[in-house]
Amino acid sequence: MSQQGILVVISGFSGAGKGTLMKALLEKYENYALSVSATTRQPRPGEVDGREYFFVSRDYFKSMVENDALIEYAQYVDNFYGTPKDYVEKKRMEGKDVILEIEIQGALKIKKKFPDTLLLFVMPPSAKELKKRLVNRGTESLDVIDARLKRASEEAVGIEAYDYIVINDEIDTCVEELHRLIQAQHNKTSNRLDFINEMREELTQL
Amino acid sequence: MSQQGILVVISGFSGAGKGTLMKALLEKYENYALSVSATTRQPRPGEVDGREYFFVSRDYFKSMVENDALIEYAQYVDNFYGTPKDYVEKKRMEGKDVILEIEIQGALKIKKKFPDTLLLFVMPPSAKELKKRLVNRGTESLDVIDARLKRASEEAVGIEAYDYIVINDEIDTCVEELHRLIQAQHNKTSNRLDFINEMREELTQL
Repeated sequence: MSQQGILVVISGFSGAGKGTLMKALLEKYENYALSVSATTRQPRPGEVDGREYFFVSRDYFKSMVENDALIEYAQYVDNFYGTPKDYVEKKRMEGKDVILEIEIQGALKIKKKFPDTLLLFVMPPSAKELKKRLVNRGTESLDVIDARLKRASEEAVGIEAYDYIVINDEIDTCVEELHRLIQAQHNKTSNRLDFINEMREELTQL
Repeated sequence: MSQQGILVVISGFSGAGKGTLMKALLEKYENYALSVSATTRQPRPGEVDGREYFFVSRDYFKSMVENDALIEYAQYVDNFYGTPKDYVEKKRMEGKDVILEIEIQGALKIKKKFPDTLLLFVMPPSAKELKKRLVNRGTESLDVIDARLKRASEEAVGIEAYDYIVINDEIDTCVEELHRLIQAQHNKTSNRLDFINEMREELTQL
């Protein structure tokens, strides 16, 4: 049964481990494509243009918005983030499940526009563990980390709109859980209406 | 994280292989309990009272209805079928996911009463395969089989109300698929609200 790929949005607090999870998921399974967002924010050490993000100027970002080249875009702190449309559509037509790793604002906009989108939210096992991971990452000052945690608490208000919560305690277990949740989506009745209609047709002709 | 067990309804055309699937699922995984329905129909050869069904008289069935001892009940052809309430509640409190193998009428009533119920519909890979399986079972005349297939075609009208469609082509694959779909339900945001609220609380106290 060839099906169009599913659109999956993964969000979660900074430090919940989304990046590591996505890397592991894509290494383990071939049926996923990770959408690369465009952003106006500065690259962090080690980030590569076209891999973590397309790092673009504010003017270029503006032109993408004007040309309707983004599925959604949002502002987060002082920067813009957006999802380029062409890549997502191409991969879904090829049958790949396309994963967008985006913030909650963008996720809710996408769900409204495409109700079949699967929204997953990754949480750390505890708030203490979240703070520990952010400190260990060592890329941000304690002030910035505290601001992020405050922000996380505010973001949690939107979580109810997500379909599933995944707790990232142990990475391999969590990757399997994500895979299972995404694949389950292919069994959704709304994704199998063609099969059901064929069966009905067949039954009346026996 | 201890959770109350999930209520799962599995339906499907006669001959789709539900019985075999349930047996394999319960042998493979310990976290399931299969609810045994009460029925007024006659046992088929090989069926044991209290295993496949509780075979009861019409009068006894009527008294169960009057004593509110059934979660739901329905009439199918000339017989009554119902789900005893006490067993289901006890097992869910123990953390078991309780599976009800019931007809579509009952399934829809349960979903209305308990919206968190997971509705799964098992389909054969094709209508031809369905007829073949019914013929091979050898327990019913061709006339009865034809009546069942006609009925299946009518039943297909209600399928859209189910959450997921599972195609039973190969039994082991199908058991894994069922297990995956049921376990995914534990990750539903609505089943993790306690965890989310604890996290919020923690984040504000860091």
